[in-house]
Amino acid sequence: IGECWVFGVKKPFTEVIKANIGDAHAMGQKPITFLRQVLALCAYPDLLDDNKFPDDSKQRARRILEACGGHSIGAYSSSQGIECIRQDVARYIEKRDDGISSDPDNIYLATGASDAIVTMLKLLVCGKGRDRTGVMISIPQYPLYSAALADLAAVQINYYLDEDKCWSLDIAELKRAVTAARQHCNPRVICIINPGNPTGQVQSRQCIEDVIRFAKEEHLFLMADEVYQDNVYAEGCKFHSFKRVLFEMGPEYSTTVEMASFHSTSKCYMGECGFRGGYMEVINMDPEVKAQLTKLVSVRLCPPVPGQALLDLVVNPPQPDEPSYDKFMKERTAVLAALAEKAGLTEQIFNTVPGITCNPVQGAMYTFPRITLPQKAIDKAKAEGQVPDMFYCMKLLEEEGICLVPGSGFGQREGTFHFRMTILPPTEKLKFVLQKISDFHIRFTQEFS
Amino acid sequence: IGECWVFGVKKPFTEVIKANIGDAHAMGQKPITFLRQVLALCAYPDLLDDNKFPDDSKQRARRILEACGGHSIGAYSSSQGIECIRQDVARYIEKRDDGISSDPDNIYLATGASDAIVTMLKLLVCGKGRDRTGVMISIPQYPLYSAALADLAAVQINYYLDEDKCWSLDIAELKRAVTAARQHCNPRVICIINPGNPTGQVQSRQCIEDVIRFAKEEHLFLMADEVYQDNVYAEGCKFHSFKRVLFEMGPEYSTTVEMASFHSTSKCYMGECGFRGGYMEVINMDPEVKAQLTKLVSVRLCPPVPGQALLDLVVNPPQPDEPSYDKFMKERTAVLAALAEKAGLTEQIFNTVPGITCNPVQGAMYTFPRITLPQKAIDKAKAEGQVPDMFYCMKLLEEEGICLVPGSGFGQREGTFHFRMTILPPTEKLKFVLQKISDFHIRFTQEFS
Repeated sequence: IGECWVFGVKKPFTEVIKANIGDAHAMGQKPITFLRQVLALCAYPDLLDDNKFPDDSKQRARRILEACGGHSIGAYSSSQGIECIRQDVARYIEKRDDGISSDPDNIYLATGASDAIVTMLKLLVCGKGRDRTGVMISIPQYPLYSAALADLAAVQINYYLDEDKCWSLDIAELKRAVTAARQHCNPRVICIINPGNPTGQVQSRQCIEDVIRFAKEEHLFLMADEVYQDNVYAEGCKFHSFKRVLFEMGPEYSTTVEMASFHSTSKCYMGECGFRGGYMEVINMDPEVKAQLTKLVSVRLCPPVPGQALLDLVVNPPQPDEPSYDKFMKERTAVLAALAEKAGLTEQIFNTVPGITCNPVQGAMYTFPRITLPQKAIDKAKAEGQVPDMFYCMKLLEEEGICLVPGSGFGQREGTFHFRMTILPPTEKLKFVLQKISDFHIRFTQEFS
Repeated sequence: IGECWVFGVKKPFTEVIKANIGDAHAMGQKPITFLRQVLALCAYPDLLDDNKFPDDSKQRARRILEACGGHSIGAYSSSQGIECIRQDVARYIEKRDDGISSDPDNIYLATGASDAIVTMLKLLVCGKGRDRTGVMISIPQYPLYSAALADLAAVQINYYLDEDKCWSLDIAELKRAVTAARQHCNPRVICIINPGNPTGQVQSRQCIEDVIRFAKEEHLFLMADEVYQDNVYAEGCKFHSFKRVLFEMGPEYSTTVEMASFHSTSKCYMGECGFRGGYMEVINMDPEVKAQLTKLVSVRLCPPVPGQALLDLVVNPPQPDEPSYDKFMKERTAVLAALAEKAGLTEQIFNTVPGITCNPVQGAMYTFPRITLPQKAIDKAKAEGQVPDMFYCMKLLEEEGICLVPGSGFGQREGTFHFRMTILPPTEKLKFVLQKISDFHIRFTQEFS
C-alpha cells in the first residue's frame, strides 16, 4: 500500500489507474441500492421475511421468482429469456419511444450486449469469396466488432467518422465505403454505436434519419448499439433511438428496414458489468430468420438468470409512489450528474494542452483525444517495432501508472494518433489523472523534439 | 389450477411435467442455504452487518468481494476468471485427485460448462475438405456437441456406446470409428461424457485408461465432460477423473496427452443452472495455443461474476470446524441420497414393463431406456412424417402431460428407439410419472398391435 513495485523496481506512483476500460464499479462507483436489494432477495428468499427491505423491493423479487422455474433463479430460463422480463423490456421501450409498440416476442435477453451482438452477426454473416457478407463498422470502432467479424470470416467495411465535426457520421462517407466494398463482397449489415464508443459523440436526429434512408437504399440490416442510451451529457444533445426515428419516418421505412437494437446493464447509471445482462430487440425480421435466431441462442441454454433479474429492474425501476423511489432517483441522478461534470472537465483540461485536441464528450463514458506526436517519437516507436500511440501509452503506463488504450486499437485515419480514456474515475482522481497525462504529454513532446 | 387446457381442449392431466431437461430447481429441488447466503451477501454487502448470517458465509463473501474490482460483483473480472477463484478451483482439483498438482493458470472460468466446451471446440477445429477437423463423440450424445460441430463445420465422428454392456465404451468401436473417419477428415479430438448424459453410465478406471491410451496413439485431444462428477449412485461405481488416471499412468502419458476437463455449477447437488457457472482445466496445452485460447475468451469480456462466486463456494465448501458445515452437509447429502433412491426406482419400475428395457442409472441424472415400438406405430409415424420415437413422445405429452426427449434427439443405433427422462422430480412425483409412462407404454403397444 502506498508503493508500487514492478519487476523489482519501485515506481514513481502508488497505484496503477486503469482508465482503459468502462468498468464503473472497479473505478469506485457504488451499486444502486434498490437493484442490489432485489438481487439479494432473489438469491436468498428467506430475506423476504426481513423488515429491513422496503416493500417494493420485496414485490419485485417475488414477481421475478414467480416467473422462474421452481421459483428459483437457479433454474434455467427459456433461451430467449424469462417471458415477464421480456414483457417489461417491451414496455420500457414503448415508454422510451413515446408509445411506439414493442412486441415481447421480438426481445431476446442475452449475456451482456456483446453476446447479443456476436449472435446477431453470426446469424447475418454467410457466403464465400465475392459473396462473403460485408459488415460496415465505424472507424474508430469498439474492437468487439472487428474481433467478431474476423472470427466469422466476414468482410469488415470501414467507414470513417468525421473528427472535425465532433465524430459525426457523414452519409457521403457511408456511400463511398459501401460502393468500394461492393467490388469484392456482399455488404449486408451496417453497425452504428450511438452514443459512440470510443468517441463519445451523440448523433443528431437528422443523422439517424439519413442512416436509415441509406440502409433502406442499400438493403442493409441495421445494427444499433445503444448501450449508452442514458449516458448523454452535452447541452442540446438528446438520445434518439433508431427504432423511434424509423417508425416516425412512416410505413415506407417502419415496415421494411430490418434492424436490431442492443442494450445492456453494464453502462448508464448502473454500471453492473459483472452480471452480464443485456437484450436485443429485432424489428422487421423475417419469421424464418427469427426461428433460426431462436435456435441459435438455444445452444447455450439461457442467459444468466441473475443478469436477467437485474435487467428487469433497470427497465422497470421504482415508481414515484413506491418507497424506494426517492433513494433510487437520488443515487441515479448523482451518478449521471457526476459523469456529466467529468465529461466537461475532461474536454476542458485536455484542450488546454498543446498537442492534445479533444472533442466534447457528448455521451457514453469515454474521450478519444487526438495527440500530436513528434517525428522523433514516431521513428523511435517504429525502430522498436511498436505503433507510435502504443509506444506513447506504454511510456505513460511506466512513468505515471496510468493505463489507456492506444487509438490504433480502435482504428483511426492514417497518420493520426489518439488514445481512449474513460471518464469513470471519481472526480478528484480524474482531475489528478488528467493533470498527469497533460504533464506527461508536454514532457514527452519535449523529450522527442 | 388443477386443470390443464390446450387450444381450448381440457386435458386429462392437471399439469405438464417437464422431465425432459436436467433442471433441478425447476423440479422442486431447494437451493443449498450456504450457497445462497453467500450470494446474497455478495449482492448486497450491507447484509454483512446482519447477525442472521453465519460467520463463515460472511468470511466467504468478504473474500470474494475483496477479489472483485472495487469490491463489487458488478465489476468485470479478468476474462479467464477471478484469480483467487481459479486458485480455489485448482486446490479443489488437487484434493479430488489425491494431490496431483493443478495450476490456476490452466483454469478458465466460463459461462457454464457449455460455454467452455463450445470455446474449446472452436479453438481446436480448423481445416477444409479432407483436412477438416474430425471430432469423435459418443452416440447417444448430448446435442450441444452436434450443434457446436455443425456450427463450426467440423466433421462429427460417431462412436457407439454399448447398450448391452450398460452403455460402456468399447475401444474396438473407437478404433473402427477413427479409422473410417481418416478416409475423409483429420480426426483431432475425442469427447467423452462421464458420468454419461443421456445414458447415465459411470466409466470404470480400466475403460478410462484405455481411452487415454487410444487418445495418445491416435494423437487426439481429449475433452472430458465431467459435469456429473458428484452424481454417482450405483454400488461399486466410482468417479475417476480423466486427469487423475492420466497422471497415474506415468509421465509417458501425463506429459504428452493434451486434454481439457469441464465442470459446472448446474448439476451435482447444487443444480444451480441459472447462474451459468463453470470451468475448464487444460492440461499439456501448447503455450501458443493457450495464448490463443486466452484471446478467444476475452472477446466476450468475462463470465458472469455471480456464477464465478457460486463456483468458488462449490469448490471450497464449508469445512468441519465452520458453523455452516452441518447444515450444508445435511442438505447436500439429502439431495444426493434422494437422487440415488430415484435412480434405483427408475430402473426397477421401467424394467417391470414389457417392451421397456432400462440400464441401471449408475450416475448423472437421466435414464435412457430402450422402447420396443410395434410396426404399426412405426408405419403410422412415418406416414405422418415423424420419427417413431418422436411420435411416441408427442402422444405421451398429449395424453399424459409428461414431456420427454425422443432418443433420436441424442442419436441411437439404427432401428432402436429410446427416450431420455430426468430422475429429478421429487420421489412421489417420480413414482407417479414412472407409473404413467408404464401404463401409457402398455396402452400404446396395444393400440398399435
